[in-house]
Amino acid sequence: MEAIRIGLLGVGTVGAGVFQVLARNGGEIERRSGRRLQVTQVARRDTAAAKAVVGDAAGISSDPWRVVNDPNIDVVVELMGGYTLAKDLVLKAIANGKHVVTANKALLAVHGGEIFEAARRQGVVVAFEAAVAGGIPIIKTLREGMSANRVDWLAGIINGTTNFILSEMRDKGLAFDAVLAEAQRLGYAEADPTFDIEGVDAAHKLSLMSAIAFGVPVQFDQCYTEGITQLQTQDIRYAEQLGYRIKLLGITKRVESGVELRVHPTLVPSERLIANVEGPMNAVVAHGDAVGTVLSYGQGAGSEPTASAVVADLVDLSRVMDADAAHRVPVLGFQPAHLSDAAVLPMSEIVTSYYLRLRVKDEAGVLAQLTAILAESNISIDALLQREAAEVGGEDSHQTDLIVLTHDTREGLMNQALARMASLPSVLAPITRIRKENLA
Amino acid sequence: MEAIRIGLLGVGTVGAGVFQVLARNGGEIERRSGRRLQVTQVARRDTAAAKAVVGDAAGISSDPWRVVNDPNIDVVVELMGGYTLAKDLVLKAIANGKHVVTANKALLAVHGGEIFEAARRQGVVVAFEAAVAGGIPIIKTLREGMSANRVDWLAGIINGTTNFILSEMRDKGLAFDAVLAEAQRLGYAEADPTFDIEGVDAAHKLSLMSAIAFGVPVQFDQCYTEGITQLQTQDIRYAEQLGYRIKLLGITKRVESGVELRVHPTLVPSERLIANVEGPMNAVVAHGDAVGTVLSYGQGAGSEPTASAVVADLVDLSRVMDADAAHRVPVLGFQPAHLSDAAVLPMSEIVTSYYLRLRVKDEAGVLAQLTAILAESNISIDALLQREAAEVGGEDSHQTDLIVLTHDTREGLMNQALARMASLPSVLAPITRIRKENLA
Repeated sequence: MEAIRIGLLGVGTVGAGVFQVLARNGGEIERRSGRRLQVTQVARRDTAAAKAVVGDAAGISSDPWRVVNDPNIDVVVELMGGYTLAKDLVLKAIANGKHVVTANKALLAVHGGEIFEAARRQGVVVAFEAAVAGGIPIIKTLREGMSANRVDWLAGIINGTTNFILSEMRDKGLAFDAVLAEAQRLGYAEADPTFDIEGVDAAHKLSLMSAIAFGVPVQFDQCYTEGITQLQTQDIRYAEQLGYRIKLLGITKRVESGVELRVHPTLVPSERLIANVEGPMNAVVAHGDAVGTVLSYGQGAGSEPTASAVVADLVDLSRVMDADAAHRVPVLGFQPAHLSDAAVLPMSEIVTSYYLRLRVKDEAGVLAQLTAILAESNISIDALLQREAAEVGGEDSHQTDLIVLTHDTREGLMNQALARMASLPSVLAPITRIRKENLA
Repeated sequence: MEAIRIGLLGVGTVGAGVFQVLARNGGEIERRSGRRLQVTQVARRDTAAAKAVVGDAAGISSDPWRVVNDPNIDVVVELMGGYTLAKDLVLKAIANGKHVVTANKALLAVHGGEIFEAARRQGVVVAFEAAVAGGIPIIKTLREGMSANRVDWLAGIINGTTNFILSEMRDKGLAFDAVLAEAQRLGYAEADPTFDIEGVDAAHKLSLMSAIAFGVPVQFDQCYTEGITQLQTQDIRYAEQLGYRIKLLGITKRVESGVELRVHPTLVPSERLIANVEGPMNAVVAHGDAVGTVLSYGQGAGSEPTASAVVADLVDLSRVMDADAAHRVPVLGFQPAHLSDAAVLPMSEIVTSYYLRLRVKDEAGVLAQLTAILAESNISIDALLQREAAEVGGEDSHQTDLIVLTHDTREGLMNQALARMASLPSVLAPITRIRKENLA
């Protein structure tokens, strides 16, 4: 059969990886797909840099529009990133009848609905395995591997930068700022790390996984997003003493009244596999009603791991690009006409359990006051840890740290109880509150 | 579109699971596949038992031949197990132009080549996600998710019975026989556990994964298979002291001269995720040259986890059953004409590292003799642990246990060194040898 002619938009880290993987494993890949995958055109503003990667093996242009308008291109691989130009180029490629493979989670999280609908109308494929968790085939696992299941929930470590930072804070007992600087030095964090450390990148990926797991639209704008910048090393330590690790998780659950969609630091029992995913690695746990818990683990970023996902999409595409839509897996795993409109719940409606740390006066009656407030909100206590005053502020300080683990409750109730506790004269500082998930 | 008409051969644990999952999640599944999956005929010798599962929802017969010969059946799902009748029925279903989904690893490990070739000639699909690691979509991950990669190796905990036994031996310090009896009582081990505890079941599954990972034929007859019946609790304890856990792994590697294919107890560094897979759970680690290490984890057996994989195959099939072969994923992931004939290496040619436990006389010069033998075979020592005589046989025993961890060597060299060491008068008992893998 004829070769598949690929146009690459962006020849940076991932683009170079795609080019290298196709060059090195082209024979092995053709043994699988039965067709040759050939990068025939690349676009990059810095054409000399592009030349250094592709040599004479493909045409090079500084103009990405040439690629999306080239009648000799079958598939456009978009690896530029960003929302604006990337969106226009992808929509133009689709309008020109080209299939699209992209690693751009931000683009799909924000404009996925519009892009998927355009592709459906044109009868072309938009594939995005590389957009979530790099080389881990998690889109395929959710969309195809778990297709027999009603998925109940999923939770993932889907941002390597923040997981690296949390691992280092725990291992070395260092503060967030110090570890962030180290991560930037090592290349695990970008010069402007906002999207990573504030949880936005994880929210992009989570919104895509949620849509696939439950057959709902991509609802990034409804995602609750809380990063790790406020996380204290002492909370990592206290959590460990109670048998938990703190991870930045993207969590989505289907409940009767809608869908929970949230990214935040989370206590996870230490014995869970996902609690032991360290450094820049990614992992996603999904729970289906038939299969139970499934975990997928691997490298969530990097040149060749991400290229592995891009090329896997190209191999899949090589099998179905000449087929009609009925022979392809729908973009979100569900038939477009059968997406549900389940609403994303406001955070006050979600149900979870909590870790609370309170700096309190070290005197009689304080614990009774606090537990009475929790009891009045019907919040039951799972565990309680009181630090000796000496450990907290010296023997004369008359202060102590009280750590409370609760059972499940509605977040609205917890917020009310927190407001009441914070107003007590014996509570001396803002209360730290971190959510906790059992993931079983 | 029309419903897909399914005939079930076998309505035992997994068959009932398939029926339940399709009944409970039929709506959700149809939202995905766009077609209804309907079990229209089932066969089970005990028709009353079948009736208790399917009620009036499907036709019931005691004769499986009626199902494979029924012109109103599109897909035969074979869940009977065994090699003989199952093989004849599957080949007949294929000859009748029906697609086949099976969970029967023994059948495919032994007769896969013949069955896949018959299906290829007839233009029908044979799907077997459920045959390996139950609900974990590992066939899909290897065949499609990693299609960009040259897979270097994979290793899996792919037998829940033996993993449960090893977890219990370690947790409770009990001997193999005691834990096996407990496992049988709990239903984690069968009345005749031979296939599980001798590693045969793992070898069946490993042979299928090896074929997919490397594009080679299914070569179960070439698989080295060593079970866990000889494993001593003391070796689990010593391994732990050295930072390792012992798991029954199926391991397959591609090396320059061929393919390694072997099932045996293996020391794995404790910090690896797969070393922390406990109880009856399964996990597979695969290493690709682009993606690096990917791990998939979940329930490897049971009614609904296995049914989850069967039904996922049915959903995949619903998309491609009307398409020609070029639009389908080839059965082993590689185009049939492009399978390689890489030979399985004899065990003397494999390269790995070793844990050795030697019961020796507690006297000067013994260690020097042993290390000299290893040095003469060019086997270098990674770690050495000598137990106090008191721990081994009492203070007067004049015996001690010597534990040696080696670096990588060829197994043939190790066998020679072991024979020389065993012949020393100061070595008092047969030497225990367990292979060790780094898995990074």
